[in-house]
Amino acid sequence: MPTETERPLTIDDLKFDDSGLIPAVVQDWQTLEVLMVAYMNRESLEKTIATGLTHFWSRSRQQFWKKGETSGHVQRVKSIHTDICDRDTLVVRVEQVGAACHEGYRSCFSLQLQDDGTFAVVGERVFDPDAVYGASKGEGTKDTNSTGA
Amino acid sequence: MPTETERPLTIDDLKFDDSGLIPAVVQDWQTLEVLMVAYMNRESLEKTIATGLTHFWSRSRQQFWKKGETSGHVQRVKSIHTDICDRDTLVVRVEQVGAACHEGYRSCFSLQLQDDGTFAVVGERVFDPDAVYGASKGEGTKDTNSTGA
Repeated sequence: MPTETERPLTIDDLKFDDSGLIPAVVQDWQTLEVLMVAYMNRESLEKTIATGLTHFWSRSRQQFWKKGETSGHVQRVKSIHTDICDRDTLVVRVEQVGAACHEGYRSCFSLQLQDDGTFAVVGERVFDPDAVYGASKGEGTKDTNSTGA
Repeated sequence: MPTETERPLTIDDLKFDDSGLIPAVVQDWQTLEVLMVAYMNRESLEKTIATGLTHFWSRSRQQFWKKGETSGHVQRVKSIHTDICDRDTLVVRVEQVGAACHEGYRSCFSLQLQDDGTFAVVGERVFDPDAVYGASKGEGTKDTNSTGA
């Protein structure tokens, strides 16, 4: 293995940032579509590994959260990868139940830049956010978004 | 479009962080493999759009850089997406010439977590970094890595 030491690398060798966070790119394990980008701290990564369901750290709410806790749209982990260069980013391949995006789209990345310089919606809504989250927008708005979560 | 205003969204509506950066997940446009994650400032995004080749901002070197400038391993942009929730992350689909990772792997995310808690190398080396970058490691080490770049 291309590492400085002979010892195998573990999650102890991941580089969390100054806030104790590591970005996680979440990808559909079959289509490889990027569903969302969110942040994990050490605790949420350990919980993700232990349960097989993704858990994150909400930067906006400064709170630990389990994806799908409100909506039921959990993510079953199929594999976890890190970059061989710095080990400071994760790619998590998941089986997505329902949709990743709290706006009702399967992927958060449903805006595509067009030749005229404007973004167009390219994804289709899988669910109606009001029906899933109701008025409280429980898990929504800042929790299942791409990176604010 | 699900936005507060009637006006179409443009790159003026992207949210760059306090350092003026936005993370960009770079994905192979055909296989959808995640190749790398790096950061763009406004200038590098504009240059990426204008030239059709990815440009980033190196956080470690505090420097603008064109992917593949040293190695020739440029990335031809096929599409640029942002998240509908916050518009604070990009997904860029590219045609990768050579390899994305300066370590010689096609993808930077060539370490996969195993059941025993250790990371194993899952990617194959496409090139020998010493042969491409030489002793100077020109574009290497901190430039084409996953997120330090």
